[in-house]
Order: sequence, then structure tokens, then C-alpha cells
Amino acid sequence: MRTKFHEQLDELTDRLASMCHLAREAVQVATEALVRADLPLAERVVDLAEQIEELRGPCEDQALGLLALQAPVARDLRQVVTGVHLVADLSRMGGLAQHVADSVRRRHPDHVACGEAEELLTRMGRVAAELAGLAERVLRTHDPELAAEVGSRDDELDDLHRRLLTLIQGPAWTGSVPAAVDVALLGRFYERFGDHTVVVGRRVIFLVTGTVLNPSAGHSAEWSEGVPAT
Amino acid sequence: MRTKFHEQLDELTDRLASMCHLAREAVQVATEALVRADLPLAERVVDLAEQIEELRGPCEDQALGLLALQAPVARDLRQVVTGVHLVADLSRMGGLAQHVADSVRRRHPDHVACGEAEELLTRMGRVAAELAGLAERVLRTHDPELAAEVGSRDDELDDLHRRLLTLIQGPAWTGSVPAAVDVALLGRFYERFGDHTVVVGRRVIFLVTGTVLNPSAGHSAEWSEGVPAT
Repeated sequence: MRTKFHEQLDELTDRLASMCHLAREAVQVATEALVRADLPLAERVVDLAEQIEELRGPCEDQALGLLALQAPVARDLRQVVTGVHLVADLSRMGGLAQHVADSVRRRHPDHVACGEAEELLTRMGRVAAELAGLAERVLRTHDPELAAEVGSRDDELDDLHRRLLTLIQGPAWTGSVPAAVDVALLGRFYERFGDHTVVVGRRVIFLVTGTVLNPSAGHSAEWSEGVPAT
Repeated sequence: MRTKFHEQLDELTDRLASMCHLAREAVQVATEALVRADLPLAERVVDLAEQIEELRGPCEDQALGLLALQAPVARDLRQVVTGVHLVADLSRMGGLAQHVADSVRRRHPDHVACGEAEELLTRMGRVAAELAGLAERVLRTHDPELAAEVGSRDDELDDLHRRLLTLIQGPAWTGSVPAAVDVALLGRFYERFGDHTVVVGRRVIFLVTGTVLNPSAGHSAEWSEGVPAT
């Protein structure tokens, strides 16, 4: 029989996975909104980001409650503390998906991007959604191999990001300056979204093994390697 | 006499304040490197960001140790959990300062920005450093009034960011597309740096009062209000 503590811990895990599920949907819908320059879709992303934020408070309260009332140790403690961290990462993923949608709303009825830039952003959006789906599975299964897979799939996103920056900063770019700025910021939002899924994976590896695989590497690697020297 | 627990908690607080101090120095030096296109200064930022990362592990371990061995409750518990959150925010501030420095290194010996864009970025860098200084004082004093002040000072940074984006996306911009992209991303780094200091302030308000003042508002407000519609 499961203890009351473990039931509550399962509930916390389930809520975190739900936040991740919503973040996946948010980035998917935001990308769809971007491709179609679709205002209602962009507005749906705002709703989804709000739903994610609504889960934030209960998760933080539940983690605090588990720490205060149960004084967990060892892996149980790591799991609650990991939960505290994850809430911030998952909430940020919702915020980043919303930034994509805000960009669509601001330029509507025009497309924010077109041609090859739009194509690359669409691919980034798809990979970002897949990464969030993978992160959700990691949260539900605590499978460290799956968690490590998030990191390698994120390399694909970084590669697309590099290509995007090479495109807009290269001589072949025929778009306007404001369009290039929009595309650069959109690329950054997707890339940061991916980084947060990598951090989710790393935090779950820490939870299972007690070993930290440099949780910030997703951050530091993203920019120094992510931008061409041209 | 202070208990062993409170001594360790003070030590954690002191380390967090040191991370913030280093983040302030990092953003200050990065801005100086930006203004002068100075490679050694940019490289010093990388060192500072590394020093911040080196404090990360000990802070996280100490927070875990305090939770595992002492099972704190009420305000003591909130203080440790706040510490867990703050480590992530402070580490990110170091990462963002490094992004500014990386941009300087990539364009060296050229200046990343010039004219009015450079001037606005310099002002953003100065406000960002002041915000980090304020956040450090908040961490050391736990003064909720000072914590609230961070939010209002950050408005200044948001205003500069808006002006920067208006400049590079407006008809008066005579720089190249790559220059505009660089400036847009630099503006984003400074603005996010400021947001993290706001979150530090909000978390300290939570610590003192037990009330959450929407810790993510710094995130959601930054983009939806931060970019002109033009």
C-alpha cells in the first residue's frame, strides 16, 4: 500500500507532467498560428499559458506542504526539491510559447516570417513540441535513458537555430530589418524552450541517480555554440 | 545564541548574495566590454560566469542538506525553498551577462553596436548592474520595501528596451541587418537579466510575508508590453 506521502508526491508529479503537456500544446499551437498567421490560434496559446500558470501555485504549495509536514529524506526529498525546480522551468516554457504567439498577434494579418525563415521556424516549433512530449514522458516514467535522449534531440533544435541565424545575417537575406529582428527573437524563444526541456531531463537524471549533469549546460551551450561567427 | 541550523542558513544566504554580487560585476564588465569592444574584458566575464556556476552546486547541496537534516518549518522552510529557486535565477543572470560578452567576442575587433543603439544598450547595462546591486542588498537584508523597489527600477530597463526595439525596427535605422539582429538579442539579454532581479525581489517578499506576488510576472510582462507594435 502506498503511503499518504507517496500519494501526494504522485499527485505533484502528475501536475508537473500536466504543465509539460500544456507547454507542448502551447508551443504546437503557437507554431501553427505562426505558419497560418492565425489570430484565434495565437489567442488560444495565451489561454494555455494561463492554464500553466494556474498550475504553478498549487504545485509550489504542494511541494512546500510535503517538505513541511513529511520531512522527506533521500530520494523522496530529491523528488520534492526537483519538483520545486521543475515548476519554474515548465512555467517558463509556457511563457516562451506565449512570446511566439504574441509575435503573431503583433504582426497580424501579416505573416511574421516567410520563405525559408518561416520554414526553419516551423521545423524548430515541431522539434520543440516533440521535446516537450519527450519531457512529459520523462516526468511520468522517470526513465533516465529517455531523459538523456532529450539532450540529443535538442541538438537538432540548436542546429536549426544556427541555420536560421546564418540565413538572416547572411548576404542572401532579402527581407526587411524588422522581419530579421522578429525572426531572430522567435528563434531565440524556440531555442530557450528546448533548453528548458533539456533541464527537465537533467533534473530527472539527478532525481534518479543523485548525480548532477550540469543543469545549466543547456543554457551556457546555447549561445556560445548557437550563433555563427559571421 | 544562533543555532547550528541558522548559522548554515546564514551561510546559504551569504553565498546567494555572493552569486548576485558576481552577477552584478559580470553585467557591469560585459557592458564595459561592449562599449570599448574590449576582448580581455569580455573574457573576464566568462571567468565571472564560471565563478557563479561554481557557487551553484554548493548552494544546492547546502539547501538539500538543510532540508534533509533539519526538517525546517514555517519561515525557515520558506527561506530554504526560496534559496533553491534563487540559485537558478542567479545562475541565469550570470549566463545572460556571458551572452553579452560572447557577442563582443564574436564581433571583435568591431563594435557590436554603435551610435544610439550602443548608447541605449550602455544605459540598459548600467540599469541592469544597479538592479543586481539592489537585489544583492535585498538578499542580505530581506527588506520587502527594497524588494519592491527592484520592480519599479526594472520599469526603466523595460522602457529602454522598448526604445531600442523602436530604433532598430524603425525607418531611421541605417545599420545593417546583422547589426540589428545583434542589438535585438543584446537588448533581450539585458531585459531578461532585469527580470531575474525582479524575481529575486518577489521571492524575498514571499519569504518575508508568505505571499506570492506572481513570481512570473516579470516574465510575462516583459514581452507583451516590451515591444512596440510597429
